[in-house]
Amino acid sequence: CAHGPRNMEDYGRFLALLASALLAGFVSVILALVWVFHYREGLSWDGGAAEFNWHPVLAITGFVFIQGIAIIVYRLPWTWKCSKLLMKFIHAGLNTIAMILVIVSMVAVFEYHNAKNIPNMYSLHSWIGLAAVIFYSLQLFLGFAVFLLPFAPVYLRAVLMPIHVYSGLTIFATVIATALMGITEKLIFSLRNPAYSGSPPEATLVNCLGLLLVVFGSLILWMASRPHWKRPLEEHTKVLRPIGETHEGTEVESTMTNSSNADKSDLRINTEAARKQNLKFDEAGQRSTM
Amino acid sequence: CAHGPRNMEDYGRFLALLASALLAGFVSVILALVWVFHYREGLSWDGGAAEFNWHPVLAITGFVFIQGIAIIVYRLPWTWKCSKLLMKFIHAGLNTIAMILVIVSMVAVFEYHNAKNIPNMYSLHSWIGLAAVIFYSLQLFLGFAVFLLPFAPVYLRAVLMPIHVYSGLTIFATVIATALMGITEKLIFSLRNPAYSGSPPEATLVNCLGLLLVVFGSLILWMASRPHWKRPLEEHTKVLRPIGETHEGTEVESTMTNSSNADKSDLRINTEAARKQNLKFDEAGQRSTM
Repeated sequence: CAHGPRNMEDYGRFLALLASALLAGFVSVILALVWVFHYREGLSWDGGAAEFNWHPVLAITGFVFIQGIAIIVYRLPWTWKCSKLLMKFIHAGLNTIAMILVIVSMVAVFEYHNAKNIPNMYSLHSWIGLAAVIFYSLQLFLGFAVFLLPFAPVYLRAVLMPIHVYSGLTIFATVIATALMGITEKLIFSLRNPAYSGSPPEATLVNCLGLLLVVFGSLILWMASRPHWKRPLEEHTKVLRPIGETHEGTEVESTMTNSSNADKSDLRINTEAARKQNLKFDEAGQRSTM
Repeated sequence: CAHGPRNMEDYGRFLALLASALLAGFVSVILALVWVFHYREGLSWDGGAAEFNWHPVLAITGFVFIQGIAIIVYRLPWTWKCSKLLMKFIHAGLNTIAMILVIVSMVAVFEYHNAKNIPNMYSLHSWIGLAAVIFYSLQLFLGFAVFLLPFAPVYLRAVLMPIHVYSGLTIFATVIATALMGITEKLIFSLRNPAYSGSPPEATLVNCLGLLLVVFGSLILWMASRPHWKRPLEEHTKVLRPIGETHEGTEVESTMTNSSNADKSDLRINTEAARKQNLKFDEAGQRSTM
């Protein structure tokens, strides 16, 4: 695949934001590792505190960083010449990796709690975190069944795409909120002499990690919701597409963005005949990505 | 103002969601009151725990519930016949009320901390909460200066509107995340015999409050981001608007939604002449709302 940005200035701005997001996400993972290795008991799988520590590391790596990248993978201009199917596999693959890491991170907590006789699932963090995991797996399953497998009719994809986009972004935001609650809990429970309220270096470091997660989430949501950074429509459907009509109803469009992708020139060939032909192309386009 | 929905079925769906959001928000405020009156020390302004209790009550009422309503106030179909200026005043007024309640809620915490010699601003909750309040006041100030006062040129409004919408929704989501951290902190600090991990009734009640805040936020974000529930363009600009071009650049459009508002028929009068005329109408339209 080659890259195909439509405007160099805009391309530069996208790259700057992408670099910032990658940096924020990468530094978040590093800070999580510094937290558990420098201030806590490190990582191991022994039923003790070092097993618990897999929880923040894997949740931040998988459920925040990798999920965030999965969300914006269609926005990368150099992938616009790749087939839609390939990009769907990458999107689904990254989300599957995130899901696996999250499951392992939950197992680590349950094993740690059970070994230490700490109750499971009593906190708001655990309630909202479990809800996020359940919705995330539903989203993954439905996304696979409807958008990746070749069986779903076009109208079903059209109806479900806005919901898929909204759920994805809402789950992502909820996951970050859950991470912030988890950080709050862990700092209160584990800091003694000085306590959390004494602001020891560990507290400052991990507060910064929390802030960085919010920055990462905000950058991802900005990139995901800018209409002009969306993957362009497939060439053969793009030329004949009547803007403002089929636009909303095709799976390549999301509802969190507006339809300014389209060339003005498209507007001038909007005849009844072109629209009918376009509908056929649309269907063909959908199937060609399978 | 009279109401003007474009489609009765869709109108019913909007009303159902609005009713759900109002219910979730209203019950959240009730649960916060039950929390502080039934399980805690109630409300008073005495430097003690009952002063602290104003913090969750006012933050949930103002920063979550009222801010949420302020976000979707342009979406209410029965306001579409009201002047844009009136709706801007309602939007700005609700956000100003929310801001005042949040400031009072912060004063309550600082006074409580100072009276009890508890450090201020050490927790992630306080860092992110303060950041949210700072961005919220910037948003209020800039919104007032650019969109309510009649001085800002149209191009500036066009450039800033997508940022205003994005910041508003991101701040709102961050505020809910902050509330969830605050709930987590308060339950850990205040529950003894049984502790939070023993799941006493208070913990269950307040966890439910936290869940309800997430439900409220999700409903508001869904309503705010559906393109077909946006306030329609002003009549005189609507007829001549070239879709997909000036659309993105006018203050009535947000970037979190697509432009399916527009009639298909609009596409057929998209000539160079119409576009130029439309630009003049646009400017007039902007000024007429002052």
